[in-house]
Amino acid sequence: MSSGCVLVTGGAGFVGTHSVIELINAGYSVVVVDNFVNASHESLKRVEEICGTKIPIFSVDLTDKQALADLFKKVNECGKLFKTGKFIAQFTSVIHFAGLKAVGESCELPLLYYKVNIGGTTNLLEVMKENNVKNLIFSSSATVYGTPEYLPLDENHPTGGCTNPYGKTKYFIEEIMKDLCKSDPEWNIVILRYFNPVGAHKSGKIGEDPKGVPNNLMPYCAQVAVGKRKEINVYGNDYDTPDGTGVRDYIHVEDLAIGHVAAQKKIEECCGLKIYNLGTGQGYSVMDMINALSKAAGKPVPYKIAERRTGDIASCYSKPDLAAKELGWKATRGLDEMCEDLWRWQTMNPDGFNSNGPKS
Amino acid sequence: MSSGCVLVTGGAGFVGTHSVIELINAGYSVVVVDNFVNASHESLKRVEEICGTKIPIFSVDLTDKQALADLFKKVNECGKLFKTGKFIAQFTSVIHFAGLKAVGESCELPLLYYKVNIGGTTNLLEVMKENNVKNLIFSSSATVYGTPEYLPLDENHPTGGCTNPYGKTKYFIEEIMKDLCKSDPEWNIVILRYFNPVGAHKSGKIGEDPKGVPNNLMPYCAQVAVGKRKEINVYGNDYDTPDGTGVRDYIHVEDLAIGHVAAQKKIEECCGLKIYNLGTGQGYSVMDMINALSKAAGKPVPYKIAERRTGDIASCYSKPDLAAKELGWKATRGLDEMCEDLWRWQTMNPDGFNSNGPKS
Repeated sequence: MSSGCVLVTGGAGFVGTHSVIELINAGYSVVVVDNFVNASHESLKRVEEICGTKIPIFSVDLTDKQALADLFKKVNECGKLFKTGKFIAQFTSVIHFAGLKAVGESCELPLLYYKVNIGGTTNLLEVMKENNVKNLIFSSSATVYGTPEYLPLDENHPTGGCTNPYGKTKYFIEEIMKDLCKSDPEWNIVILRYFNPVGAHKSGKIGEDPKGVPNNLMPYCAQVAVGKRKEINVYGNDYDTPDGTGVRDYIHVEDLAIGHVAAQKKIEECCGLKIYNLGTGQGYSVMDMINALSKAAGKPVPYKIAERRTGDIASCYSKPDLAAKELGWKATRGLDEMCEDLWRWQTMNPDGFNSNGPKS
Repeated sequence: MSSGCVLVTGGAGFVGTHSVIELINAGYSVVVVDNFVNASHESLKRVEEICGTKIPIFSVDLTDKQALADLFKKVNECGKLFKTGKFIAQFTSVIHFAGLKAVGESCELPLLYYKVNIGGTTNLLEVMKENNVKNLIFSSSATVYGTPEYLPLDENHPTGGCTNPYGKTKYFIEEIMKDLCKSDPEWNIVILRYFNPVGAHKSGKIGEDPKGVPNNLMPYCAQVAVGKRKEINVYGNDYDTPDGTGVRDYIHVEDLAIGHVAAQKKIEECCGLKIYNLGTGQGYSVMDMINALSKAAGKPVPYKIAERRTGDIASCYSKPDLAAKELGWKATRGLDEMCEDLWRWQTMNPDGFNSNGPKS
């Protein structure tokens, strides 16, 4: 079993909650901070249920540097945040999920995105530095690659050239972290570039819970299948792909969560700056995904072919070899499992965390 | 004469002070904010002397959003900041000079640069938005072009690919401003990309006053000529340039300052987002500059050929045509005038603004 205490920012969110579970399963103590703007307290209650342990949770917004500094100070001074009475002197590392992530919203409210994502991250880095906590895992995104110059995307593919503020914030933060590591070799930072996280926890108790109209394909499909929405739009069926619809690299959120534990082990080797793709390496088309969810749901998901959206690309998938080699990590969950787990979550929680809770 | 009240951030600095004078000469009211970290109060006293008018000056750090918001509120509420009793209801526009600017320091302290430059700018933009002041002139830099793909550099040359945090902050801020203008067409933003500002005000009362060892060629040369330093290092004389030393586009700070007045006029046409190079279009080598300063000083400036520095490029100069066409602005001061004015400032103020003041 591992020891050490990991601070997880944005720990109440989709990838955050699943990662907290895997960290606890691996023996880590976990402290969560979240501003609960895009996440619910219920999600963490479910995590506590699943893990059978209490988790120290702090409602802190990373744009409030003082509040964050106070949390670090508290840990440092009392060294006892856990109801179990477990002693910690300071965080071993930080996994930084917190941030805004809706592409469309970022185009409408760019200042908000720059302030929350960049400002929040620089506050976090400053407080970490002030407390001599220099181990960090950052949740970046394949969006930093911009329009692919070649496929599959490996970590050496050029970055930048993002067309929306959300993507730019991920790219800018990566650059800030690279500069920080260059300036001070004591830092260990693992940047994880996610492809398209889908699925849900096997228990059906936690999963993706978008507020309002889902921005992503699979939560939208699941809401169609469960009868909450009429049909899903397929934006373009004349792309240069096998069936004409866009191809992406969908990865089960459980695989992604386990990838964070692997990254945490890497950090403990004092790895300096490392960057890894987290994907399966396998591309699936929009129609593949609709068909797979239809199969899992046992009924067809109605869809409609619509116009291409500006900014969308034909294909995007990863070369995941570096993570396999250096982290010993590989995605193992296939398309059917992604859809079955998503469907279980959706049917047990038709209204997400606002539902009456999973039937046990 | 023009009317309107311009808020100048970083108004106590090198380009800031000269621009304040030209704005006042053009009939604008000016309010200055500065944190006085890299600038002195004396510089603004001299500006007041030169202009024969009092300037409202506020010691505000842009990373303190509340302090900035309070200033805007004060203007809005009392509408009377001027000792002349002149009434203003709100700022007409903002000229944003404030920021850290030392390349070497930015490599050592990247977090500080990202926090001050990016955080300060997003605070400023937010406060402006909250007060419905949506006219801005931003002092960017030719550094955003990275290594030139062609010369002379026009405004369509690709940006990004900066190799140091200082340059990245300028590039990131430009991107933030572009996204902001895209999201809200009420904004008018003129981004000015400076080449290499040199020289000083004709009066000899204000000029560049670097703290510690000067980072830039000409202030260093001037300190050598005045006897404060032994010799100037010439980093590389085997570049692919006429005399082997690096070629840059030096521009008289007075020309630059007048360029800001031209940009302010452009803003008043509700121009949306505009980007202009401010340079002369004429490249001079390091040896050209040393020789010209020697001539102005009436004595040779000792120099030593040293190794090339990593990151330095052979040549960088502007195509200034767009500013000529759209702003009606052109640099008119030549090499001799740059050096004569610099020399006057240096001899009248051997210790910068800490000197005993200009002899009159």
